[in-house]
Amino acid sequence: MTGSETGKHGEYALLTPGPLTTTATVKQAMLRDLSTWDSDYNDRVRHLRSKLVELAAGKSSRSRYTSVLMQGSGTFAVESVVGSAVPENGKLLIVENGAYGRRMADIARVLRISHEVLSCGEDEIPDAEAVSRTLETCPDVTHAAIIHCETTTGILNDIASVGSVVKAHGKTLIVDAMSSFGGIPINAGELGVDFLISSSNKCVQGVPGFGFVIAERSALENCEGNARSLSLDLYDQWRVLENEWKWRFTSPTHAVLAFIQALAELDEEGGIPARFARYKALQARVASGMEELGFKTFLKRELQSPIITSFHYPKVGNFVFSDLYEHVKSDGYVLYPGKISNADTFRIGNIGDIDMSVIEGLLASVRAFVRGLSD
Amino acid sequence: MTGSETGKHGEYALLTPGPLTTTATVKQAMLRDLSTWDSDYNDRVRHLRSKLVELAAGKSSRSRYTSVLMQGSGTFAVESVVGSAVPENGKLLIVENGAYGRRMADIARVLRISHEVLSCGEDEIPDAEAVSRTLETCPDVTHAAIIHCETTTGILNDIASVGSVVKAHGKTLIVDAMSSFGGIPINAGELGVDFLISSSNKCVQGVPGFGFVIAERSALENCEGNARSLSLDLYDQWRVLENEWKWRFTSPTHAVLAFIQALAELDEEGGIPARFARYKALQARVASGMEELGFKTFLKRELQSPIITSFHYPKVGNFVFSDLYEHVKSDGYVLYPGKISNADTFRIGNIGDIDMSVIEGLLASVRAFVRGLSD
Repeated sequence: MTGSETGKHGEYALLTPGPLTTTATVKQAMLRDLSTWDSDYNDRVRHLRSKLVELAAGKSSRSRYTSVLMQGSGTFAVESVVGSAVPENGKLLIVENGAYGRRMADIARVLRISHEVLSCGEDEIPDAEAVSRTLETCPDVTHAAIIHCETTTGILNDIASVGSVVKAHGKTLIVDAMSSFGGIPINAGELGVDFLISSSNKCVQGVPGFGFVIAERSALENCEGNARSLSLDLYDQWRVLENEWKWRFTSPTHAVLAFIQALAELDEEGGIPARFARYKALQARVASGMEELGFKTFLKRELQSPIITSFHYPKVGNFVFSDLYEHVKSDGYVLYPGKISNADTFRIGNIGDIDMSVIEGLLASVRAFVRGLSD
Repeated sequence: MTGSETGKHGEYALLTPGPLTTTATVKQAMLRDLSTWDSDYNDRVRHLRSKLVELAAGKSSRSRYTSVLMQGSGTFAVESVVGSAVPENGKLLIVENGAYGRRMADIARVLRISHEVLSCGEDEIPDAEAVSRTLETCPDVTHAAIIHCETTTGILNDIASVGSVVKAHGKTLIVDAMSSFGGIPINAGELGVDFLISSSNKCVQGVPGFGFVIAERSALENCEGNARSLSLDLYDQWRVLENEWKWRFTSPTHAVLAFIQALAELDEEGGIPARFARYKALQARVASGMEELGFKTFLKRELQSPIITSFHYPKVGNFVFSDLYEHVKSDGYVLYPGKISNADTFRIGNIGDIDMSVIEGLLASVRAFVRGLSD
């Protein structure tokens, strides 16, 4: 979407962490009904699954990795991994610095899965040394999980250093790459990731409807019989996808067609490296532009992801976030509220079909709003 | 879809139990990205939820009933009801005559919920007297569940007589109306249904992406704290929808927009009674037309739903179902394989945006295929 397409009377740009602004062609791919039993659909599903493995771990990794699609939101996919990977006598270490790490702990609690939580505060990244000490203190831990990009703040965690410690201890490594996969290069094989989780409406720039898991084959095979749910059984889902090329239960066929188009457009853009470069440039301009207007970022620059940026509410007496929200929305830009525990913040995402003219348009709109505040 | 729109080079009519053929306008409603935090989306969600209650129980029932939307396929919605409604010390009676009843028993088994299964064979409908006897023999049963239309065969169960017995025994009544809601009149209030379950891609004629539950408020309030899953917690999902008008986790915004359009088109058609009449006429023609061509229906006519019809493979030496499938597909019609335990069958659905010309076109295609068989 370019700035000139946004405006008062119709479409607007979603500056959110997803569901996000998708291209017209991604949406148009949904103008078709396919049967979940027909090869026209299932051949596409099979190809999509291969493509996900290739993006996560390279073309040569197909014997080592496979992929599983799961209906529902990203949280459903995370729950399917936690509930299927950790066996009854297993224990999960959750390394958390935000709402999505804590949500994983909620999943473990509800599923009655033994777990430890290592927290480091929302404005810091988890330290590999601390993870190592925890693994030494808790030798009964079998699995460790970390969020790649915590959209709570927009922080980018160092999955390489933490992952390396987890693997050195011989534990199964789960990475929630919900809001980073497709937008930030990840090589699951090099990092030793066993389960990499994301969803259709994030950096691949599809529409919401399903999540997916790129899984190391032997780690996935170990999931057999573990699941605490019929619907969210990752292993059974995989077996049917693998043997029959079918989803076990009705799949969101239209969202799948949109995702396939989105994958093709990711390639056309130049793959993940090119998309990463675009996101970095957009995020840098969001941050510098907002700082020029007097907004302070929540995170130190070196911890900031290229996905979404948190800003403190400005210390101006008459600032009301909903006024800013409505002002920029009437100009064609939709912001995202904050989610941080101990600070009043709002967020600006820059993923999706967004170019620099959208960011400049947003900044112009915020500038006009700020002028009104100072009156 | 009319017969003239189907053909060798492009679109085809889905004669399946869903995902089904939707109208162009339902699909076009997906050509928009909305933010899950914005009132433009959440106002629509709130209206949709009210409309579902009205369809299931009438306008006057809003104080007694509410509705909950659940991401994923219909099975996810069924699991959310079973896993949230039956408390730890509860027991579920499942009255089954097909794969979807047995799937509910699988859910109870995986969730370690105490349950009884009352089976009656796939070609018979459950008898209220037998249900009554089971409830007397098993006084510890707290909840009873039945499938309205078992798409395994296409049989239409008598939820009025069974429901009446369940309610007379003071049990909570769960009805899986997955493939009937929107296409067959149901008055949840009169039947005393506590949880009525369906999904977006069935007789309302939307696209797949979510399920929904119309729930009696006090029965739903009793679900608090029962859920065996974070994602599939029906009570928590409801509280957030009710208090914040939001889905707890990312929702399939495009499928929701399609569903809202589909609800408007259901009204335009004349509501559920008019759609029911259309489906009945289409099903009657499917059955009579196929019988004229030598195919025998699996069910006795009086047990047949107006949704989908099972046919025995004809006793012709060289009949191969996949040949029939490919033949009619090349003419623009997609059939559905069988799912019956002890008989070789295939199925023809007649729900969706299908009119009589589609059925006549299908029958002409089958006629040509049958002529080829006799050669």
